[in-house]
Amino acid sequence: MFEIGIFSFGDTYPHPVTGIRQSVHDSLRDLLERIELADKLGLDFYGVGEHHRPDFSVSACSTILAAAASRTKQIRLGTATIVLTTDDPVRLYEQFATIDQISAGRAEIGLGSGVFLESYDLFGFDYEDRKWIYDDKIELIAAIDAAGEKVSFKSKSRPELNDLYVWPRAYGDHLSIWQTTGLNAESFERAARLGLSVQTGAPTSEFGRLADLVSAYRQSGINHGWSKDRLKVTLSAHAYIGENHRQALETFFPHYQAYVSNMRLHRGKPAPTRDQFEEIASDLDSNIIVGDAEQVVAKLKHQRARVGHDRHIFQIDWRAVPQADQVRAIHILANDIAPALRSDSSIANAAA
Amino acid sequence: MFEIGIFSFGDTYPHPVTGIRQSVHDSLRDLLERIELADKLGLDFYGVGEHHRPDFSVSACSTILAAAASRTKQIRLGTATIVLTTDDPVRLYEQFATIDQISAGRAEIGLGSGVFLESYDLFGFDYEDRKWIYDDKIELIAAIDAAGEKVSFKSKSRPELNDLYVWPRAYGDHLSIWQTTGLNAESFERAARLGLSVQTGAPTSEFGRLADLVSAYRQSGINHGWSKDRLKVTLSAHAYIGENHRQALETFFPHYQAYVSNMRLHRGKPAPTRDQFEEIASDLDSNIIVGDAEQVVAKLKHQRARVGHDRHIFQIDWRAVPQADQVRAIHILANDIAPALRSDSSIANAAA
Repeated sequence: MFEIGIFSFGDTYPHPVTGIRQSVHDSLRDLLERIELADKLGLDFYGVGEHHRPDFSVSACSTILAAAASRTKQIRLGTATIVLTTDDPVRLYEQFATIDQISAGRAEIGLGSGVFLESYDLFGFDYEDRKWIYDDKIELIAAIDAAGEKVSFKSKSRPELNDLYVWPRAYGDHLSIWQTTGLNAESFERAARLGLSVQTGAPTSEFGRLADLVSAYRQSGINHGWSKDRLKVTLSAHAYIGENHRQALETFFPHYQAYVSNMRLHRGKPAPTRDQFEEIASDLDSNIIVGDAEQVVAKLKHQRARVGHDRHIFQIDWRAVPQADQVRAIHILANDIAPALRSDSSIANAAA
Repeated sequence: MFEIGIFSFGDTYPHPVTGIRQSVHDSLRDLLERIELADKLGLDFYGVGEHHRPDFSVSACSTILAAAASRTKQIRLGTATIVLTTDDPVRLYEQFATIDQISAGRAEIGLGSGVFLESYDLFGFDYEDRKWIYDDKIELIAAIDAAGEKVSFKSKSRPELNDLYVWPRAYGDHLSIWQTTGLNAESFERAARLGLSVQTGAPTSEFGRLADLVSAYRQSGINHGWSKDRLKVTLSAHAYIGENHRQALETFFPHYQAYVSNMRLHRGKPAPTRDQFEEIASDLDSNIIVGDAEQVVAKLKHQRARVGHDRHIFQIDWRAVPQADQVRAIHILANDIAPALRSDSSIANAAA
């Protein structure tokens, strides 16, 4: 079954028109209410991701997800993404196994090496070392999950584990671990070898290459003896989902403009125009998804047919989009978009 | 107002009669239900403490407390105790500030250097180094709390912070930080200097010396310019609170015997007899508190008059005491014991 989810960093950027920042307390209250709503309406996944700066209220992912776990019933709860390089796989495993126990098996952990770099300074790691440290730590967390009660592992990036308890264990026979990657064949192959799922945010211009990687990953995972339910692929996107095409474009443009302007400023480029925005929004291959239910369904069917992924997740709280707009988007995702995708036979075939 | 609280490690020791261990899932479910009940009945505090072994379901304290925060309304949530020496003050601050934000100011963090030693191996610290590392880390977490938005601190035990965000900040103007100590005058004085509260589990034979330390700590804290609400003292105890004296002794004895036998075994001593148990239970100075509401009130009034502390907390889930017995104990604590102590004028005077 094709899955639909949401992810959030607890955006607290100033509103593009009023300039007002939401407080951390209000941001987290709203986030937990959105997770509760998504759970009630039957969406499949809610994720949070790690930053350490006043633009986002989420730094401690496991803490937020535990709060969400105890007020939800069926939704899966995970991360998109935790910076594994600058964290400790042993602590992370214990935290997420605890959430998994509390939620009777609904925890997932998504691990990357970071886009924002503040955690490297904060926890004393050199960004230049990120590859070997990440490689070491992803092997370690997979080894913890694969171990019996006690764990032994000679890590290069932290003290070795010599027949020690990492406790508690996951609720079921394993913890759902996701590796975040772009178009890195080596990362896909490692995920296949270790039985990890994959989350990717590859640029849409590369969907052809991504589809090949996804297909090779699934085959390799099966060759390594893993069951299909461990070999999942998530595609992430930014979205504003409104009541109709015109409302979505009108309301969202200032938020989009603020977001892109800021990124372009660093490269000395001008702010995007309304025409450029509408062009991106209408491009079926774009991972900036703006529109009403019908448009989003068309786009997702198109992208699903190209990539063959299992789950699409959307960041809907970016650049101060108000809570009311996000609540509407969750309703549309759950009531209109998810059912249309689940019943789509071309998608069911693509997933087979 | 004198406060009554509970703390738990998520005991999953085998039942002394049946030999059955509770599963982690059931243990955490029961723990969260107890916290919810204690909140509804108006108890002041619920704490959890860190271990990394199959005898306890709690390793990730902030994870459990966040789950509790989102289903409670008024109770304060903290730790008794986290092993600060083997953890990272920056991560801890972010986790507990997040709980503080979610709960609108109800988070507390209690920090010690550990009684059980498994975290030293697990996180790669030498137990011999515990003093200087703890000293360094308690200064760091206090400095993070005292800082403005960004933090600078030259730590000896972790990478230094050079004008970096530790985010989010606490909900109010500071996070409630507690230092766990025995009868160490230096620790009391440091807590007074840094504006930290103190949790102690000093042996009852030393109540006289403890009272002097508490009194000196409060005076020193005021001299350092801290308000009284930061200079709190908690005393911890083990308890079994039953419907009457006889029921409490009868039901609890096998659990107590299993607990003490195990400790004595290491020292080659015999298991305690029923007579020895009854003697300890009837001793007004003992911090093993067994009895009905009336007996517990008498004992707490006596100890409160001797020590002059602000809060008494009880571990009621030890050595497989069943959930039903703990639920009864919470009812008695909230409905009978707490009101009797709050209205006791001798206690009000002692606290002044």
